[in-house]
Amino acid sequence: MTCPGANAVNILEPHDPPAAAPGDRAATLAGLKTRFGARYSDSLALREQHGHTTTWIPNQPPDAVVFPESTAEVVDIVNACRATRTPIIAFGAGSSLEGHLNAPFGGISLDFSRMKRVLEVNAEDMDCEVEPGVTRKELNHHLHNTGLFFPVDPGADATLGGMAATRASGTNAVRYGTMRDCVLNLTAVMADGSVVKTGGRARKSSAGYDLTRLLVGSEGTLGIITALGVRLFGLPEAILAAVCPFTTLDGACRTAIAAIQLNLGLARIELLDPLQVKAVNAYSKLSLAEIPTLFLEFHGTRAGALEQVEMFKELASAEGGGPLDWAERPEDRSRLWQARHDSYWAGLGLRPGARALATDVCVPVSRLADCVTETYADIEEMKLIAPIVGHVGDGNFHVLPLIDMSDPGEVRAVEVFNERLIARALAMGGTCTGEHGVGSGKMKYLHKEHGAGVEVMKAIKRALDPYNILNPGKIVAMP
Amino acid sequence: MTCPGANAVNILEPHDPPAAAPGDRAATLAGLKTRFGARYSDSLALREQHGHTTTWIPNQPPDAVVFPESTAEVVDIVNACRATRTPIIAFGAGSSLEGHLNAPFGGISLDFSRMKRVLEVNAEDMDCEVEPGVTRKELNHHLHNTGLFFPVDPGADATLGGMAATRASGTNAVRYGTMRDCVLNLTAVMADGSVVKTGGRARKSSAGYDLTRLLVGSEGTLGIITALGVRLFGLPEAILAAVCPFTTLDGACRTAIAAIQLNLGLARIELLDPLQVKAVNAYSKLSLAEIPTLFLEFHGTRAGALEQVEMFKELASAEGGGPLDWAERPEDRSRLWQARHDSYWAGLGLRPGARALATDVCVPVSRLADCVTETYADIEEMKLIAPIVGHVGDGNFHVLPLIDMSDPGEVRAVEVFNERLIARALAMGGTCTGEHGVGSGKMKYLHKEHGAGVEVMKAIKRALDPYNILNPGKIVAMP
Repeated sequence: MTCPGANAVNILEPHDPPAAAPGDRAATLAGLKTRFGARYSDSLALREQHGHTTTWIPNQPPDAVVFPESTAEVVDIVNACRATRTPIIAFGAGSSLEGHLNAPFGGISLDFSRMKRVLEVNAEDMDCEVEPGVTRKELNHHLHNTGLFFPVDPGADATLGGMAATRASGTNAVRYGTMRDCVLNLTAVMADGSVVKTGGRARKSSAGYDLTRLLVGSEGTLGIITALGVRLFGLPEAILAAVCPFTTLDGACRTAIAAIQLNLGLARIELLDPLQVKAVNAYSKLSLAEIPTLFLEFHGTRAGALEQVEMFKELASAEGGGPLDWAERPEDRSRLWQARHDSYWAGLGLRPGARALATDVCVPVSRLADCVTETYADIEEMKLIAPIVGHVGDGNFHVLPLIDMSDPGEVRAVEVFNERLIARALAMGGTCTGEHGVGSGKMKYLHKEHGAGVEVMKAIKRALDPYNILNPGKIVAMP
Repeated sequence: MTCPGANAVNILEPHDPPAAAPGDRAATLAGLKTRFGARYSDSLALREQHGHTTTWIPNQPPDAVVFPESTAEVVDIVNACRATRTPIIAFGAGSSLEGHLNAPFGGISLDFSRMKRVLEVNAEDMDCEVEPGVTRKELNHHLHNTGLFFPVDPGADATLGGMAATRASGTNAVRYGTMRDCVLNLTAVMADGSVVKTGGRARKSSAGYDLTRLLVGSEGTLGIITALGVRLFGLPEAILAAVCPFTTLDGACRTAIAAIQLNLGLARIELLDPLQVKAVNAYSKLSLAEIPTLFLEFHGTRAGALEQVEMFKELASAEGGGPLDWAERPEDRSRLWQARHDSYWAGLGLRPGARALATDVCVPVSRLADCVTETYADIEEMKLIAPIVGHVGDGNFHVLPLIDMSDPGEVRAVEVFNERLIARALAMGGTCTGEHGVGSGKMKYLHKEHGAGVEVMKAIKRALDPYNILNPGKIVAMP
């Protein structure tokens, strides 16, 4: 068979000799086809759907898609694939943005859509255990009537497994943390076929290396998550959503910073630039003034939340913000936040046919206003169509340059824009990716951000996946 | 020279051949002595002081103690030691409890007491960068008048480097998290002499493997921390400390659980059993009723904190607790919490001449009352002198059996007690160590807790420290 990845999986020096020649991949695929029957597919449409996802990076389909139903099945698949150095790429909802799910060397896309059980909910301990294919909305639907919720909310209705693998966050992170904070433990199948449970349900532990945090954000390159324990939170007594327009982007950023520094206890504080407001108005049928705007959410006792609103109004007023418009009815709140979550699709609507590069820098909050302002100047100078939206409470914001992929000059210009944006963020003590992950799209920036740390990452990858079968070509290049 | 550890540092199969024969350790020591002069010592008294620390585990002194003053010096020491496979053990305040600082194979104790600078405080971003020898009290003293504080507070005035290395927590973790949550980034010298900065100052990042969290809790076995960025928090408007007696241990535990589940926002909730109250009364000259007691702290606006106190009173009353006695004056609060922090020494005072084994299990909060009650029954049945104190908001508690080390039967009985306690906690989904770490004392429990995960830990250790020179004989045994 033609196997574009045959070299890639041999570029490591394995710790022990191969069990079979790499050329046998066809036999592995045939074996999996026999074993999994209708849960194995090599149809081109399905393979392409699994080799691209929500990204501007070109499609690289896997050789086949397999739908496991248990950890034991994943173990068998890993063992079969290891024998012939066949890559394995864990697939959740397909909503990642940096080519995490592309199959540059072919192999198996492991689709977790048949592992969707909520295994247990421990209401007293405010935690639960789920299979990796459960999406965030499905989990919250399941928790309905428990008084508990799971807060991490990337824009898409991503799976919990994918969210853990990319160390995802979203609009609530400023108060409830990211997947780094909300994952209690993981069950993972390692490259050698062993099954590791990284921890128990205690809220803290000092028992050895933090394998939970090592796997969170490892993007399926160190182990394949087959179950997760996650923290839950009590629904607050009152939730108030609000919209606050500003005369300047800078004023909106500075208000966000002040609110964080005063520890107002905001659950969400999201910035939209005028172009993003325009996009949201069109896509979600809202009629907001098309000027810099903060979307906000306050959680607490009702009196406490109203007190926060009043304090926020004062801060905003000092920076040219207001009037603040707030809503308490669930349907009004949902409409606002669904509009925010749809901002990627709304942005695409500004330029039909275009693709989007979703940038993702995150800086210390004190540098946020500078970083946004300088970036906005860059957008204007480069004449890009590029709405801005961001989790400004964390210092994290996304610019969404819209690209005509048929114009190489434009593609290159957007790449240059992103390189400059990342250099700016790194110079401010920030990161090239606050929540999207590295995938293949951000690999070139990793050394700039981590220096010698990249060699440590490579050493870990080599130690845990000596044949480079787990999502090869992502995060760190081998050897 | 006599070198008890000569074999131990050769038990690994290194990834590349040794640069020199292991027998040259004497040359390495002589070279360090010449280079560091008065900052190198091989006096027996100093070596013994560095080979034992706060633990019942017998003394194992290093060959020498070196006092570095910079990251560059640590690099030179690591390179010199690697050449002859000489162990290096990072040393902070010497307050760890599980033999972390023992030198079973000799080598160098790297004492960070000359690396005590607060490198920067970023008040706007609520973070700072410190050298590893800064203690938690020194940092908070430095932050005086900034309106900020660093919350993590193990009983001892430990160094930040040591606290990061053991993934320490303390009484504030229920609200502010542990070192896992509060460390933003680390600078570390790796076994190959490279210097890694694990991250920037952004509050979140998805840029590759989480090396910060991998090093936090690695107890100096994967890298040597030479600087840390840590999160700071705004001092609350009001702090109220309180003491609440209970008629039963069970009632105190159940009240703690209810307060956590109601998300009362307590900053501290600490349990003392009657024997611990007696010890604290004697050591700290208090006159508390010698019955089960919770020490509490409420942070918030003044109205908010008083509201919390009232809600807590109701919960306590339903479980046979009260009257609650609260204090707001800093000197009264400090006296109470210093008494709590001195509980280890107070406990030792119950049996002069005895040593203490500080147990450290942590369970899901819903199992806390069961775990404490069953453990209390075990103490009574085994007729141990063993006060109990715990961070019950996290499900973490310490029993302090006092041991006559000259009586082997008693030593064995206490070991059996701890084995049973740990088995009980693990059966409840808990951990053998909530905050003390593994060191050499808990190594035998690691496989019971982590199963196949221990092999993953070993693979990481082998990959990052192939000659096993960084704190050998701790966490995971090699090979």
